[in-house]
Amino acid sequence: MSGIGAAPGEVAGGEIEQIGVGMLGYAFMGKAHSNAFRKIAYMTWPPPLVPKLVSIAGRNEEAVQNAAERYGYERWTTDWHALVSDPEIGLFDNGGPNSLHAEPTIAAAEAGKHVICEKPLGRTADESYDIWKRVAATGVKHLCAFNYRFVPANRLAREMIDAGELGEIRHFRGRYLQDWGDDPSLDTWRFHADEAGSGALGDLGAHVVDLARYLVGDFESVSGLVKTFLPGREVDDAIEAAVTFSGGAVGTIEATRLALGRRNALQWEINGSKASLAFDMERLNELQVFRADGDRARGFKTVLVSEADHPWWGFWWPPGHIIGWGETFVHEIYHLLECIRDDADVAPMGATFEDGYRAAEVCDAIVRSNETGAREQLTYRSL
Amino acid sequence: MSGIGAAPGEVAGGEIEQIGVGMLGYAFMGKAHSNAFRKIAYMTWPPPLVPKLVSIAGRNEEAVQNAAERYGYERWTTDWHALVSDPEIGLFDNGGPNSLHAEPTIAAAEAGKHVICEKPLGRTADESYDIWKRVAATGVKHLCAFNYRFVPANRLAREMIDAGELGEIRHFRGRYLQDWGDDPSLDTWRFHADEAGSGALGDLGAHVVDLARYLVGDFESVSGLVKTFLPGREVDDAIEAAVTFSGGAVGTIEATRLALGRRNALQWEINGSKASLAFDMERLNELQVFRADGDRARGFKTVLVSEADHPWWGFWWPPGHIIGWGETFVHEIYHLLECIRDDADVAPMGATFEDGYRAAEVCDAIVRSNETGAREQLTYRSL
Amino acid sequence: MSGIGAAPGEVAGGEIEQIGVGMLGYAFMGKAHSNAFRKIAYMTWPPPLVPKLVSIAGRNEEAVQNAAERYGYERWTTDWHALVSDPEIGLFDNGGPNSLHAEPTIAAAEAGKHVICEKPLGRTADESYDIWKRVAATGVKHLCAFNYRFVPANRLAREMIDAGELGEIRHFRGRYLQDWGDDPSLDTWRFHADEAGSGALGDLGAHVVDLARYLVGDFESVSGLVKTFLPGREVDDAIEAAVTFSGGAVGTIEATRLALGRRNALQWEINGSKASLAFDMERLNELQVFRADGDRARGFKTVLVSEADHPWWGFWWPPGHIIGWGETFVHEIYHLLECIRDDADVAPMGATFEDGYRAAEVCDAIVRSNETGAREQLTYRSL
Amino acid sequence: MSGIGAAPGEVAGGEIEQIGVGMLGYAFMGKAHSNAFRKIAYMTWPPPLVPKLVSIAGRNEEAVQNAAERYGYERWTTDWHALVSDPEIGLFDNGGPNSLHAEPTIAAAEAGKHVICEKPLGRTADESYDIWKRVAATGVKHLCAFNYRFVPANRLAREMIDAGELGEIRHFRGRYLQDWGDDPSLDTWRFHADEAGSGALGDLGAHVVDLARYLVGDFESVSGLVKTFLPGREVDDAIEAAVTFSGGAVGTIEATRLALGRRNALQWEINGSKASLAFDMERLNELQVFRADGDRARGFKTVLVSEADHPWWGFWWPPGHIIGWGETFVHEIYHLLECIRDDADVAPMGATFEDGYRAAEVCDAIVRSNETGAREQLTYRSL
Repeated sequence: MSGIGAAPGEVAGGEIEQIGVGMLGYAFMGKAHSNAFRKIAYMTWPPPLVPKLVSIAGRNEEAVQNAAERYGYERWTTDWHALVSDPEIGLFDNGGPNSLHAEPTIAAAEAGKHVICEKPLGRTADESYDIWKRVAATGVKHLCAFNYRFVPANRLAREMIDAGELGEIRHFRGRYLQDWGDDPSLDTWRFHADEAGSGALGDLGAHVVDLARYLVGDFESVSGLVKTFLPGREVDDAIEAAVTFSGGAVGTIEATRLALGRRNALQWEINGSKASLAFDMERLNELQVFRADGDRARGFKTVLVSEADHPWWGFWWPPGHIIGWGETFVHEIYHLLECIRDDADVAPMGATFEDGYRAAEVCDAIVRSNETGAREQLTYRSL
Repeated sequence: MSGIGAAPGEVAGGEIEQIGVGMLGYAFMGKAHSNAFRKIAYMTWPPPLVPKLVSIAGRNEEAVQNAAERYGYERWTTDWHALVSDPEIGLFDNGGPNSLHAEPTIAAAEAGKHVICEKPLGRTADESYDIWKRVAATGVKHLCAFNYRFVPANRLAREMIDAGELGEIRHFRGRYLQDWGDDPSLDTWRFHADEAGSGALGDLGAHVVDLARYLVGDFESVSGLVKTFLPGREVDDAIEAAVTFSGGAVGTIEATRLALGRRNALQWEINGSKASLAFDMERLNELQVFRADGDRARGFKTVLVSEADHPWWGFWWPPGHIIGWGETFVHEIYHLLECIRDDADVAPMGATFEDGYRAAEVCDAIVRSNETGAREQLTYRSL
Repeated sequence: MSGIGAAPGEVAGGEIEQIGVGMLGYAFMGKAHSNAFRKIAYMTWPPPLVPKLVSIAGRNEEAVQNAAERYGYERWTTDWHALVSDPEIGLFDNGGPNSLHAEPTIAAAEAGKHVICEKPLGRTADESYDIWKRVAATGVKHLCAFNYRFVPANRLAREMIDAGELGEIRHFRGRYLQDWGDDPSLDTWRFHADEAGSGALGDLGAHVVDLARYLVGDFESVSGLVKTFLPGREVDDAIEAAVTFSGGAVGTIEATRLALGRRNALQWEINGSKASLAFDMERLNELQVFRADGDRARGFKTVLVSEADHPWWGFWWPPGHIIGWGETFVHEIYHLLECIRDDADVAPMGATFEDGYRAAEVCDAIVRSNETGAREQLTYRSL
Repeated sequence: MSGIGAAPGEVAGGEIEQIGVGMLGYAFMGKAHSNAFRKIAYMTWPPPLVPKLVSIAGRNEEAVQNAAERYGYERWTTDWHALVSDPEIGLFDNGGPNSLHAEPTIAAAEAGKHVICEKPLGRTADESYDIWKRVAATGVKHLCAFNYRFVPANRLAREMIDAGELGEIRHFRGRYLQDWGDDPSLDTWRFHADEAGSGALGDLGAHVVDLARYLVGDFESVSGLVKTFLPGREVDDAIEAAVTFSGGAVGTIEATRLALGRRNALQWEINGSKASLAFDMERLNELQVFRADGDRARGFKTVLVSEADHPWWGFWWPPGHIIGWGETFVHEIYHLLECIRDDADVAPMGATFEDGYRAAEVCDAIVRSNETGAREQLTYRSL
């Protein structure tokens, strides 16, 4: 027997619905998101919706044209407004620099498109609040791309916590350590205050803050400091904070681009009254688990989070055949597509723009604490 | 500025040549290879050749039809001969069970198609030799899919060895430990002697043997044993061997499906007179490196093989953003496509069918040693 | 040939001088110090001075009598004044509870005896300052028993830093995690405010503070918090702080008795502009070392600090034959005996009472910061 | 209250019995054993018997005299016969080179003294059998100093196995890796065939063999090889073997002095049908434990073997305060003293001379297998 293989998006007996994607940004995040859109179509089978790569926007004409060819977007443009007005686009994905998060994202949502926006949502809590408020008013689905919620180990941690397996949580210590910042000759929008808003704080610290919120709950206060080491650098190289959570836990938060030898080490540890968990993004397939179960052989387990019953593992390979960092975006966008298809809530498993805003409040409080020297209490605005 | 984004395979000023792919097998290896074909088109930019997924073959009609839809093959068939006779197919990829390696692969090569065949090449050295001999006679490119040569850490190890950084190699100890075999109720072609040829030996042991050959060189002798633990199982559960290499090194080889807690642990260590290296597939982004460089701070480095100057890293992400097991197939097939485009040698960086055959000789020698109780010297046939 | 073996303390051609030891405390620290005194006599050969165990003091008559028999003290007493007035005692070792640090230590020094006092020196900075001031005035040698300076890995770290191998230090993150505190039924002087002064702060946090000072230099400011989780507990269970150092580094400090699964995890990491170092007391024989040396194989080394040229290793075994936690006291007291014999400075390699006082200033500042909510600047008194 | 502290060996209400020790050897093993004798008296409280260091023997007069002074032996001698005839000696400890194991040990036992002898018991199975046979005939207690049975992690492993926690054992892979052998200029009795008998085989391989026997049971067959790399070296640098056990398990055995970067890495892993265990002597306080207990969080635990209910931990410190390699001798000799005091069996927790002999049979079989190329079946002589 032979036959015609349907194009992706069709299954026996019917077609999976498509959703047109408009992508803003072709660099690091543009690549990561485009890869996810392409893989969702065949790795997450059947996909909730089939992403159709309609158009990609970016400032450099040659680069954006090249990206369109490379990733298979049907069109390209140097003007993001073209994405907003494009009727074929149902999902607007903002992977541009931080200064380009607010306006295009709001415009796309107000044009009725679902929106993903890279983190940090805005450059400040005010800007983030504005994005959230205006996008929420439109009723579209919105996701702030804190992709580390979509690491299987982090999701497993959340599921264990939700199931009460940790008991009362006492401590969260989280840090995001990288080391590429120690190069005075390097120039990128990430070092420009107007484009980036902040340095390690928004780029790395926001991830730690969001994971802390995802796993432990909201922050109550921060006592922090912000530090720029390299002469002439406009943004911070590192932040440090002692923090308290509304639920009673206490801990530390840190982010730096100057931790020599640490390339992508988002590390966290949580200590509860029944169990402890620990994680390192450089070994993102692993979760360290300690259970106070009375076993004479007492210790942290190195759990390879790759079992058939582990989060999202059904998309991938047999146990022990690990996945990469890029796959977190597959999980993230898959989740959003499910929410769009089912008209379901992005939260609590995905980060909404409210989560993006709340993380920004914590980041701003660290900056304020640096300036005032005082412990800053967190308050959150509602809509 | 806006424009039309070319379909993948086109670049500004000209088109990248395509190669039609015919895939035999839609299960584990069919999925892994199909994923690689799709990612090569946009992650390895510009790709040497753009894989065009022409047709996929498999025994189960519903499953193969579904796979065609899922991965985007234009056609499907339950008869692999259709791939062999398909003029649009330039590359035949054999991911079927071991008993289906010889005939289709030879037929495809004799039809002028380049061929990839999953490991083990044949079920015995004789069968493997026959495949090699007949395929080599056709002049097509042939690659035996020992994909672990295409783990960046393993390639880096090879490059260090080639550069003389290890000095004289004294030891290789390699083992491939999995634990899924301890289930009497499980049935798969991998447990049937006629389809699989052997158990852990050809499935896992062959990988260890190939990596040993890739890194240390040819085997000289083996003293081994083969063991089946589960009643009624037709194939071996485990093999063990003490081995010598032509270059003078000595060591051990092991493969088992009954190492409880080890999910995909292909582990090896090499000790040379100047440096030692160690590796574990469950942490495939890492290479352990010890150098006798006189540093007072003496020890094994945990090298995250993800730097810009590390093998294949230009395809992926910034340093520290690790890749997964699936990416090894991207590297492997990329290498083959380069060899096809440039009419270059698949060896020594890729495994040819000669390498597949030589690994089979070592596996056969372990079986013979088990039966005779004697140390078996290796001899290799040439064409 | 046969002969008479001299008693320990005699060497061919002459006798090594003895020093009479008076020990206050027979529990945890009494055991650790007594073991060190006994081992110094034969493991650190020839010892600088031979400790002669003269007398041991403690509150419980039966227990102190038993301790005298067990460790070989010639006498015992329930009144520590007897040690102070004992002319045979040249070295007074205070291993009693924190509330018993000040008076006996000062009295012993004023009686002309050299003094070791367990950490924290006093229960507050004021008390610590008083001890330092009065003891320093006597001219005896004084050592505050921050024994973790005498872990070979920590000393090696200090030597690397002194040699400039780290460049400019940017970060220190240190934490001392234990988990025995989560037992409401447990009672010990360590939970009583009057005897202990503080909880995790003085018990564990002081160690982190001292190691930070030893490796990075003096603290400039702390923004901290102090937390008691268990109802009815008089002292803190945990402290957290964001800190700055006079030299420009920033970081975090943490101590807790509620980190489930961590038994004795004093962990620190230092990031400099040329190298990074990391350590965990649960693997006290190891130091993690990253050097920015341009090696393509880039990563943290796991250095087993047990080479012939590593600190104090000449006392022990061949490389790789690791030592235990108890050995840190051997190194510490050996250092003090050398200083006594040679009339040399205890600092900077050993912690003096000034170091004990300065650590107390930092601990007090954390308490103040907790109360005021403000970043507390450190100021240090001099004599 | 004050009082007179009794000398060690006296307790309130009565004296602990003493046993006179005669030590042969003052170098590496002489130091390790002497340290143990001294520590037993106060760390293992109350000790079963108090070791009284009567006399030490060695070939070099100055060195042995110095050792007597250092470790506190009452007498010294260059003639080991003096120990055998010394009526004050109740325990003869043989830490001399392998060529001096047989004659003095037999003589001491025949003089009615209990005996400890370092491993390997003899240089061959024949010599070992002779020692066992003649010593057993005397009725004294005999212990072959395989001290790694007395690592708490190894003892815990044995207790878990005895309790059935591993189920059916399928695999043992053990290796002892060191790297000091790669120095052509080095000279020691360990490189002389007549004094040592063998190289890595008896020095390191015997430890692996004994631990395998302790944990898994007796060997059934070995297929091995023996290799000398350095020109002019009289003994082997490395051995490799594939092995079977009487109980059905299969595995590999390796020992080498040329594994660059491995300083004292006696590593083993056992896979059972219910659990797996793994160990590395360079982290001797840790045991890796995997249990097939159905926990979704599945993985190897890093167990810090330092809990109050772990083997011998009552002698030492609070949990997490690790011990060193030297402490294994404290546990070993403590066990022997208990057996002497109670007239109890040294086996199965301690290695007797029968165990020493059986290990020698396995080592000899590896040598035979190297020569014949054949799998060698083990047979064991009885008395």
